[in-house]
Amino acid sequence: MNIELYLTAVPFTEANLEDKTVVVIDVLRSSTSVCAALMAGARGVIPTDGPGEAGEMRSRLGGDSTVLAGERNGIRIENFELGNSPSELTEESVGGKFVIMTTTNGTSIFKKTSKAELVLSGGLVNASKIAEKIAQTGKDLVIVCSGQMGNFSIEDTLCGGLLIELLTSKYKKAQKLNDAATIAHQLYQKNASYLRDTIEKGEHGQYLASLGFKKDVSTATAVDSMPVRPVLRDGRLIRDDN
Amino acid sequence: MNIELYLTAVPFTEANLEDKTVVVIDVLRSSTSVCAALMAGARGVIPTDGPGEAGEMRSRLGGDSTVLAGERNGIRIENFELGNSPSELTEESVGGKFVIMTTTNGTSIFKKTSKAELVLSGGLVNASKIAEKIAQTGKDLVIVCSGQMGNFSIEDTLCGGLLIELLTSKYKKAQKLNDAATIAHQLYQKNASYLRDTIEKGEHGQYLASLGFKKDVSTATAVDSMPVRPVLRDGRLIRDDN
Repeated sequence: MNIELYLTAVPFTEANLEDKTVVVIDVLRSSTSVCAALMAGARGVIPTDGPGEAGEMRSRLGGDSTVLAGERNGIRIENFELGNSPSELTEESVGGKFVIMTTTNGTSIFKKTSKAELVLSGGLVNASKIAEKIAQTGKDLVIVCSGQMGNFSIEDTLCGGLLIELLTSKYKKAQKLNDAATIAHQLYQKNASYLRDTIEKGEHGQYLASLGFKKDVSTATAVDSMPVRPVLRDGRLIRDDN
Repeated sequence: MNIELYLTAVPFTEANLEDKTVVVIDVLRSSTSVCAALMAGARGVIPTDGPGEAGEMRSRLGGDSTVLAGERNGIRIENFELGNSPSELTEESVGGKFVIMTTTNGTSIFKKTSKAELVLSGGLVNASKIAEKIAQTGKDLVIVCSGQMGNFSIEDTLCGGLLIELLTSKYKKAQKLNDAATIAHQLYQKNASYLRDTIEKGEHGQYLASLGFKKDVSTATAVDSMPVRPVLRDGRLIRDDN
């Protein structure tokens, strides 16, 4: 397969997604929180563009079966039950419910993937599960690193690089890489032994620590600690572990 | 100094440039061509947004003292004397003249730098001259990698990384790096021994080779082969080697 990687969501909007697999990456923190929610027994996670759309979605699905989770600039949105910390997404808070989620960088990207064959949500915590599925389908791959407010982030780039490493070394599936994919791969190889340290020192890692979310950075950088595979179906990220 | 690096021109437009040094990088090929023009005795290079503005500039300055150079998608613009190949920018074609230049990715960025203290045009061919000046001023630095049509390019990222390497190891001036700067620096360190090879294999390197411009890639990757320092003054890149 060929692999294209987009370091931020901005140029990605022009990518051709037909007959391709798309992986959306937002390591800090929505990719991690999606996995945490599904691990905790949520029925699904519904990515939305903003608080307005999240509220409408809740009205449609009913308050009993849903919970609102989201942040802006790292901080929980007013009147939302939950923020975007994976630690909040417990069996008690989300078990059996749909989590309606909106975050600064990650969630709105899913809206732009309708032409893709298969859309996955990937983080460091579920990288191997995601790579396995990508290899199974054998379709060309588009990796979208959500980045940070239109710029890009080291943690998403490293996660993209880990996926490419798995597809290259373990599955022998990677053929042509675009420049961003080459860079992500090399960056991963250089940092493979100290991913957490590099990410903690990164811009968003430091910002989250300043807000008191340092533990979330540890959680998000524990590779393969949440072996779930969130797949987008009808606008919902549901668990598909087959 | 602190160093911010922008991998494409898109998010850079939001950067704060006041009291900072800005370096614009477009290794393939406009940064290289600017150096080639100044080395060949051009009085200056005038970056413009497009053929329309280039033509107006020529009318204003007069046809005798100017030459039009530029490309779109690598190919010379109709009715322009020169394309964007450094090999065309000779003493005969540009000596004593102003080169009015417009390229797909690089030239329009200069228009967005008016708030900066100092604006330089940097490539691999003049990296040490640029780093020397940046270190002399000691101002915080913004590096703008022009990238490729809103996405980014491995050659510009490597050039940014080389500047950061010089500022870090030789001049001991680098303090805080943003994530993109960290990545560029690491990418440079990983590829320092085979820059040309990595760039030839990159997307734009291959594209230029397909157009018959493989020699330009060799020219553009010859580190420090054109020791000039193009500085933006009143909208013109002029030689400032002090």
